[in-house]
Amino acid sequence: MESTRRPRLTPAIADIRRAVRTLLPAEGLVLVGLSGGADSLALAAATAFEAGRAGIRAGAVIVDHNLQTGSADVAARAAKTARKLGLDPVLVLGVTVRDEGTGPEAAARTSRYAAFDAALEQTGASGVLLGHTLDDQAETVLLGLARGSGPTSLRGMAARTGPILRPLLGIRRAATRQFCADAGLEPWSDPQNFDPRYARVRVRETVLPTLESELGPGVGLALARTAEALREDSDALDELARTLLRAHWAHDQVAAAVLAAQPAAVRQRMIRFGAEESLGVWLDRGQTLAVAALVTDWHGQGALSLPGIRVERQGGILIFSVPGPT
Amino acid sequence: MESTRRPRLTPAIADIRRAVRTLLPAEGLVLVGLSGGADSLALAAATAFEAGRAGIRAGAVIVDHNLQTGSADVAARAAKTARKLGLDPVLVLGVTVRDEGTGPEAAARTSRYAAFDAALEQTGASGVLLGHTLDDQAETVLLGLARGSGPTSLRGMAARTGPILRPLLGIRRAATRQFCADAGLEPWSDPQNFDPRYARVRVRETVLPTLESELGPGVGLALARTAEALREDSDALDELARTLLRAHWAHDQVAAAVLAAQPAAVRQRMIRFGAEESLGVWLDRGQTLAVAALVTDWHGQGALSLPGIRVERQGGILIFSVPGPT
Repeated sequence: MESTRRPRLTPAIADIRRAVRTLLPAEGLVLVGLSGGADSLALAAATAFEAGRAGIRAGAVIVDHNLQTGSADVAARAAKTARKLGLDPVLVLGVTVRDEGTGPEAAARTSRYAAFDAALEQTGASGVLLGHTLDDQAETVLLGLARGSGPTSLRGMAARTGPILRPLLGIRRAATRQFCADAGLEPWSDPQNFDPRYARVRVRETVLPTLESELGPGVGLALARTAEALREDSDALDELARTLLRAHWAHDQVAAAVLAAQPAAVRQRMIRFGAEESLGVWLDRGQTLAVAALVTDWHGQGALSLPGIRVERQGGILIFSVPGPT
Repeated sequence: MESTRRPRLTPAIADIRRAVRTLLPAEGLVLVGLSGGADSLALAAATAFEAGRAGIRAGAVIVDHNLQTGSADVAARAAKTARKLGLDPVLVLGVTVRDEGTGPEAAARTSRYAAFDAALEQTGASGVLLGHTLDDQAETVLLGLARGSGPTSLRGMAARTGPILRPLLGIRRAATRQFCADAGLEPWSDPQNFDPRYARVRVRETVLPTLESELGPGVGLALARTAEALREDSDALDELARTLLRAHWAHDQVAAAVLAAQPAAVRQRMIRFGAEESLGVWLDRGQTLAVAALVTDWHGQGALSLPGIRVERQGGILIFSVPGPT
């Protein structure tokens, strides 16, 4: 009944193909970021199929992080699978991961995205499709919550960030495993996915299961949905703040009255973005509120000295500057 | 060394008194909502002290939910403590909790807040202080996340909602227990606080401890801080949407071009608030997005029938109406 070359159209295959179709560019070449895991393998197979149907080209980029023995073999196996799926070109890029104090996950991520940039440059592709699923999104939100870095960290991942496309953010991880089973593809199981030294692994293996058992099985979906709405909210406020900055920020100065006229959420963004754009300093929430107090709680206080930045109110004007040598 | 009447000023006592001082009105009478638990007992003691210092009056309102045997005794004991602390007047209000399908926690909450309203009316007090702590706030955020009702449910509780004041939202629950120990007050331990049938109890006893053990002890603080920032964000967007509605919504109609000119977060709020204010219908996210598609994905589609509401686009105008009998 069933051919090995054209898998039967099961619900998992249909859902994932449809998700890919929605984000696929109309022409040219796209690449799939392939690790060999179920997520990216299902994505690669669905992309190969949909690209063929749409008459565009699809290739693959495989990043060998050189972090585990045998990683070259894993990469070679993924490359072979990619070619079998009809993806072309297939690039295998070796990278060196340097942890410069950001932790091993962030360091690997930085190297990986640099490799994607190189692959785009090398091939002229318009984008790289990544296999992040709804479950990855839920984990990202929980990790962001735990860091407490506020709304920004709860935004989760975007379906589209420059050339990076994430068509599977609405798809459960289990569906990608089902896709592989239905299509006769054998995913690689990354041992790092079970290494409890990684916060993301602990979220996946312990935190999310606890949330689901205590509060109901819909928690993963709820988290992903929340990320979507929060992303819209913060995009709107970011845009508003940047528009106001363009109109009212000049020579590292802004009128207190302009800041005072805005709601707290916009005022604080104006301060944060202004400091970042003019002096390259990223203020945290506490520091931002301290600057805002020069507007909301003005009682003639002196200059505010923060790491890398000095903010002073003179008359009705807030002046941002680099602190002099002390 | 230490008098039993004036407790030594320990860090817990100082912190909680300072928190109360910040929210205390300048004159008149305030009430403390007192259950007898550590949170509200510390709040009552701190309020009695600070009110005395500020020369204003402070009383207490004790709500007997009549849900547990002996609840009248617990209420009487709390009333006695309140009087000993110098609070006056002390009201004990019995309520009947009717669960009309919202669940036992929400039903008790509704009855309790109705009792607070009655107490305000009866005494002429300007506000009721409640003992919700930073931990309660973190639990509220997690419960909201699990419901997936989006940014609104993540806002947590406000320090000030009409006459309701929550001075302890920045205080850890442990500090209220420490306050009681330092002040020689014996808090009542509500058995319902350990009843795992309540989702909030499961969050407190299982979910938050798991988050803290897997992701670090700062999770509770991070959640509370996130709620504060999200509250600012959604307040700003709510206000923006309501301002636009006042200018552009008339006779249950709004121009598609006005909605199209807004970012998604504002457009969706305009649709949701418009439907609520004009027809009393609260649209969920999916329904709101369906209405928004009449603007963002317009291809001549027909009227949209949703529960309790019908939305139709005629030319450039969106028309909201109550569906006729079918």
